[in-house]
Amino acid sequence: MKASVLVKPQSVVVEERPLPALEADEVLVRVSAVGVCGSDVHYFQEGRIGDFVVESPLVLGHEAAGTIVAAGSGVDPSRVGERVSIEPQRPDPHSKQSLAGCYNLDPSMRFYATPPVDGAFMEFVKIQSHFAFTVPDSISDEAAALMEPLSVGIAAMQKAQVTPGAKVLITGAGPIGIICAQVAKAYGATEVIVSDLDDERRRRALTFGADRVIDPKTDDVANLGLEVGAFIEASGATPAILTGIRNVAPAGRVVLVGMGADEVALPLSLIQNRELVVTGIFRYANTWPIAIELVRTGRVDLDGLVTGVYGIEDVAQALADSTKPASLKTIVRPGR
Amino acid sequence: MKASVLVKPQSVVVEERPLPALEADEVLVRVSAVGVCGSDVHYFQEGRIGDFVVESPLVLGHEAAGTIVAAGSGVDPSRVGERVSIEPQRPDPHSKQSLAGCYNLDPSMRFYATPPVDGAFMEFVKIQSHFAFTVPDSISDEAAALMEPLSVGIAAMQKAQVTPGAKVLITGAGPIGIICAQVAKAYGATEVIVSDLDDERRRRALTFGADRVIDPKTDDVANLGLEVGAFIEASGATPAILTGIRNVAPAGRVVLVGMGADEVALPLSLIQNRELVVTGIFRYANTWPIAIELVRTGRVDLDGLVTGVYGIEDVAQALADSTKPASLKTIVRPGR
Amino acid sequence: MKASVLVKPQSVVVEERPLPALEADEVLVRVSAVGVCGSDVHYFQEGRIGDFVVESPLVLGHEAAGTIVAAGSGVDPSRVGERVSIEPQRPDPHSKQSLAGCYNLDPSMRFYATPPVDGAFMEFVKIQSHFAFTVPDSISDEAAALMEPLSVGIAAMQKAQVTPGAKVLITGAGPIGIICAQVAKAYGATEVIVSDLDDERRRRALTFGADRVIDPKTDDVANLGLEVGAFIEASGATPAILTGIRNVAPAGRVVLVGMGADEVALPLSLIQNRELVVTGIFRYANTWPIAIELVRTGRVDLDGLVTGVYGIEDVAQALADSTKPASLKTIVRPGR
Amino acid sequence: MKASVLVKPQSVVVEERPLPALEADEVLVRVSAVGVCGSDVHYFQEGRIGDFVVESPLVLGHEAAGTIVAAGSGVDPSRVGERVSIEPQRPDPHSKQSLAGCYNLDPSMRFYATPPVDGAFMEFVKIQSHFAFTVPDSISDEAAALMEPLSVGIAAMQKAQVTPGAKVLITGAGPIGIICAQVAKAYGATEVIVSDLDDERRRRALTFGADRVIDPKTDDVANLGLEVGAFIEASGATPAILTGIRNVAPAGRVVLVGMGADEVALPLSLIQNRELVVTGIFRYANTWPIAIELVRTGRVDLDGLVTGVYGIEDVAQALADSTKPASLKTIVRPGR
Repeated sequence: MKASVLVKPQSVVVEERPLPALEADEVLVRVSAVGVCGSDVHYFQEGRIGDFVVESPLVLGHEAAGTIVAAGSGVDPSRVGERVSIEPQRPDPHSKQSLAGCYNLDPSMRFYATPPVDGAFMEFVKIQSHFAFTVPDSISDEAAALMEPLSVGIAAMQKAQVTPGAKVLITGAGPIGIICAQVAKAYGATEVIVSDLDDERRRRALTFGADRVIDPKTDDVANLGLEVGAFIEASGATPAILTGIRNVAPAGRVVLVGMGADEVALPLSLIQNRELVVTGIFRYANTWPIAIELVRTGRVDLDGLVTGVYGIEDVAQALADSTKPASLKTIVRPGR
Repeated sequence: MKASVLVKPQSVVVEERPLPALEADEVLVRVSAVGVCGSDVHYFQEGRIGDFVVESPLVLGHEAAGTIVAAGSGVDPSRVGERVSIEPQRPDPHSKQSLAGCYNLDPSMRFYATPPVDGAFMEFVKIQSHFAFTVPDSISDEAAALMEPLSVGIAAMQKAQVTPGAKVLITGAGPIGIICAQVAKAYGATEVIVSDLDDERRRRALTFGADRVIDPKTDDVANLGLEVGAFIEASGATPAILTGIRNVAPAGRVVLVGMGADEVALPLSLIQNRELVVTGIFRYANTWPIAIELVRTGRVDLDGLVTGVYGIEDVAQALADSTKPASLKTIVRPGR
Repeated sequence: MKASVLVKPQSVVVEERPLPALEADEVLVRVSAVGVCGSDVHYFQEGRIGDFVVESPLVLGHEAAGTIVAAGSGVDPSRVGERVSIEPQRPDPHSKQSLAGCYNLDPSMRFYATPPVDGAFMEFVKIQSHFAFTVPDSISDEAAALMEPLSVGIAAMQKAQVTPGAKVLITGAGPIGIICAQVAKAYGATEVIVSDLDDERRRRALTFGADRVIDPKTDDVANLGLEVGAFIEASGATPAILTGIRNVAPAGRVVLVGMGADEVALPLSLIQNRELVVTGIFRYANTWPIAIELVRTGRVDLDGLVTGVYGIEDVAQALADSTKPASLKTIVRPGR
Repeated sequence: MKASVLVKPQSVVVEERPLPALEADEVLVRVSAVGVCGSDVHYFQEGRIGDFVVESPLVLGHEAAGTIVAAGSGVDPSRVGERVSIEPQRPDPHSKQSLAGCYNLDPSMRFYATPPVDGAFMEFVKIQSHFAFTVPDSISDEAAALMEPLSVGIAAMQKAQVTPGAKVLITGAGPIGIICAQVAKAYGATEVIVSDLDDERRRRALTFGADRVIDPKTDDVANLGLEVGAFIEASGATPAILTGIRNVAPAGRVVLVGMGADEVALPLSLIQNRELVVTGIFRYANTWPIAIELVRTGRVDLDGLVTGVYGIEDVAQALADSTKPASLKTIVRPGR
């Protein structure tokens, strides 16, 4: 099969790879669609993300969907033929964190497209059967792949404890911000405010669930007094964090989703005086069934996020295009 | 009656004051004991704490106990004679926050010894009846007064979600740190680790619930790898925050109790990657019944914290002595 | 002013009453619309509900809206003229329950239309200012009145912990069942199953949020194996409870909303083996802001529930008609 | 090795069995001590518990401790020699329930001494490595075995949400009731009330954490008005359930631990009017680390529960003796 391999920073090549052997609890999936994530771009450009360093050839891509074409010895063979969305995690099921239901925090996690584990920019991937979630035919390949970033939005909304009637601030209208706006609505938020520096992105946010947009270039965000119950930071920009947090009501929650500066000077007395809760998310756990339901019932639109589709030969182009402001989500279709 | 009044920074004088008139739901309390808090010292020395500025003469002291000597028209007159511990708050009971059970976050709060509301360094104070909590005779006047800092410890432990078997790090072995160590034990923590720069304070911590003490001067705290589930910051020292947070296990909680620098550069990627929860406390709500039970049953020792007792004429001395390292809690007895 | 008074079981008469005097924190409201509740019918027919006995003339009606026409001395006079929805409760704000945020459980509660407290089938009522919630002009008088039963649905969904992607069973398609179906959807449920014995009611449920209806006359409900996460019992019928509970998945929740037999033989081993949580609701707390937001944003349709509007002279007719199967919500407009 | 096998109701015989083969993630444990549980007695006497029927020879015993003597290929061989307490569960780690952290509710669970899975009344047993928890030398073999019933008490207290200052009613002073009394104290309860029909059992309860005991033969339990926040039912007796529930304060919790009548007529209007939460426990999840800590630190005394120790030849006698009122916990030591 063909695989798009990152051989060194800024260089991906298509190679022939053997099909992977399946363990008893795994399935083989012919990959139909893979979303391009900012972390893929980051590995491509820099060869590392923080402590995770690409030290040998790596296949990128972790937002993946496809069709089961083979089943391990312990898997019900009737699963072959199912269209599935892949949860790209492999925690130790016996770790303390897994036993407690937060397997995403297991320190021995093996995750797609995170060195040294290969991702999904290839024709076939394997995954444990229980992390290959069946999707109905009404859900497209692209949407099935994008259950992964949707899961990020769901995890963020759970941490933010968004419930019906909530007022939510989201900073950053990139793909995750746009997904968070939709998920906030699905979680019952009745006033979703999105900020972004880019005019077009703000306009787009209004079509994906935002009730109001703010422009940090002209609005004095720190003093808007929005009194939101939840603030989802999806830009990674330090000014967004610092001005956003001043709009959080007493007992409100701040969820840091965007990745930016490693250290940021936070206003501790504000956190104390208002008893704010500041936290972040590291991927997600137990979100796929929710994600699929939200898309199946039309609560969240993932197809509308797609701004480009590429073949496996064009992964470098897909990665490059995904950084353009007009881009929201680019998709690689390995089997195209 | 006599009242000790802060007339300008670093100057308290004893004045004669009329007894306060009671509203229907209030009681008049002859004050038996008042604990000296760091905030009293701060107002005394600086005339302000952050945005709270002493602009007219102010009576300090908010950790108070005494005996009910008169009852407002709406209060059961049989309460006269009861020994009580005072919860020194007066929120608007109809505010959104009060209705939701977090009355401490009501923005219209009137709180003892917080400008312009007088505190308890005087012979008599008034308080709404439901915030005068009866204490059994087995509890001393001093302990009844110290239900207030104990409430701080309880609020911290609730936010930290400490449960039986927990491992807890507490930075700072001043009065609040020492109380937190005891409360952590009462909440079931089975390993309580306390840090402090002062040798004597660390020794003392071991007698008040700490299972282990660490010395930031000699221990490389940031790299101890304690993997605690909860970190209670009770020193206000920036290095304590920054080294302590690195010892928090995935999904652990950080509760900022000590007041220090307004802004501190926190490691956001650590917060994200471990999904840490960082929050603070602003006083407390619904803690007095718990506090009284913990003292009544001997789970927490407050009498042992008292390192000095002063008369109302000696408030300045009590404030000064309370800052000495060997001091833990100084008490003013207005009626002495 | 005119008041419709229950003078003995099955007898209401219109009387002239003086306007009530206002306490400092109260407002006087000209009543525009009042929903008829099953409890009103029950008091009308039987003169009692359980331990609550009508021993002197009583004004019924507790689902009320109107316009503020006068303000007590402690209320901002600019509130006069506001259209409001009334939360018909008066707890002691200093009770243990109120301080903890569950004021609905305060044993000293005084509640509209619950002996000996008069309700709202009259031209003017008084209520504490903070329980008169401003509604936007886009919300009708009838919908403003029906924030009360909507609050019941919200309280039920909160207890049921319904979150996005949830599968919910609701037994009973009367007004509360229909509201619960809508609220379940607003809380993110993606599969709402409603049962009712009446064909027309089941048909109607499908237009108000039900994804599927079941007929207990023909479906073997106990053995449907629905595996729902939440079961909202809104019929009060013992068979509905007993067959419904068998469809609840492990760790699922059962919320008893309908009032029926005082004692029901529940399957304890089922509750234990699946760790089901069985609870009920007693009115609501802190729901009005949510209710108004859900109606304002179109998440819940209350106007569609109205099947009859009556004048104050026709309260007996309104009560009688509200029990007809084709009826959903009858409204009394005292000022009509 | 020798195994005590239930060959038909009321008949256990000691047989020779081969050592079990280990899977990669399993360890072989030489069994030092096994507690006798009421369910063992029930299987012995009746050959079934509800739907679980003993259809082929079965080894009973699921409260077990011992020493690791061999490790599967995937287990760190340095574990050999460790003294361990066994969590006798084997859920599917990939089930929905396991992924969510409540693996005890996994429907495909395989559990010691539950047909057709053998238990621990034999010289050697195997268990997955992560469910063999190391115990310090300060903990006896018997106490290590009794981490299992202690886990029941912990699970009960978690469901009951017992926190410091709580008032708790426990009905039944058998081994589980006595453990629950101790665990309630470890969870911070400051008033623990235990009821039992037997005088000696009530006396014993007072030495294991009960602050007060009540005698259902002479106390009118239904009308004691205890207003407890939590009621742990540990007798299985219907009258205990029905009188106990009337002592639960508004918003209080009822946890059904004892197994008794399959159906009990519960007072639904009481549950509704007080918003009581009624639930049960089915074993436990994630309790062993807590249990070991509670015993290690002396918060819970398990050794004091042991009222008899038997060899593997005397299992029938151990089962019989464990039903005597004076008995609390009988222990089988297979390797004695």
